[in-house]
Amino acid sequence: MDVRKFSITDASFERSPGQDGEVFAGNVIDQRHGGPITLGYGRYGPHQSINEILAVHDVMVVLEGTLSVTSKTGTVTAGPGEIVYMPKGEAVTIRSHEQEAITAYVTYPHWQEAHE
Amino acid sequence: MDVRKFSITDASFERSPGQDGEVFAGNVIDQRHGGPITLGYGRYGPHQSINEILAVHDVMVVLEGTLSVTSKTGTVTAGPGEIVYMPKGEAVTIRSHEQEAITAYVTYPHWQEAHE
Repeated sequence: MDVRKFSITDASFERSPGQDGEVFAGNVIDQRHGGPITLGYGRYGPHQSINEILAVHDVMVVLEGTLSVTSKTGTVTAGPGEIVYMPKGEAVTIRSHEQEAITAYVTYPHWQEAHE
Repeated sequence: MDVRKFSITDASFERSPGQDGEVFAGNVIDQRHGGPITLGYGRYGPHQSINEILAVHDVMVVLEGTLSVTSKTGTVTAGPGEIVYMPKGEAVTIRSHEQEAITAYVTYPHWQEAHE
């Protein structure tokens, strides 16, 4: 693999697995590229909510809008430039608010392989 | 580890190892927390430049300003919301421009352990 740069326009968004709301993920680097981590962009429509038990360690950098993440320890709310760290095994609910939200995410290991 | 949220004010910035310019890194999650990845914020003063051979896989999400990364395949320039993926083993020069630049970074494995 070489050094590569990505913009949100490089992501092919697909609906997040196991849910039918307006929550989309688009990997730009993943198992197809031979490295250990997956990297991509996330997009949440207004007033969406997803529940997930994390199969991988997941870092979410909020780029636009606001997201709230509820777990066993409570709820954190993150806006642009803020980061939510979600360790493997945690049960989380991720909620968007009035605005669309955009994230960059990194997972270790690859989330698509962990889901299969 | 629990789900946690971070802002740039949570980072304790230290000068990047092996260089004396205005380039700083502040881990918010690393080897002290027991997970597999390091997560933090980077800060580059205007017109700074660092050379590095990457000891780990490194993802850099640009939050403010602009950074150019030169490697064997050429130079990429990333602004807010753009991501630069730098695989382990690559030799890179990272350069800031007129403005200060702020990044969020994720490394696998922990960069501080790889540097020691």
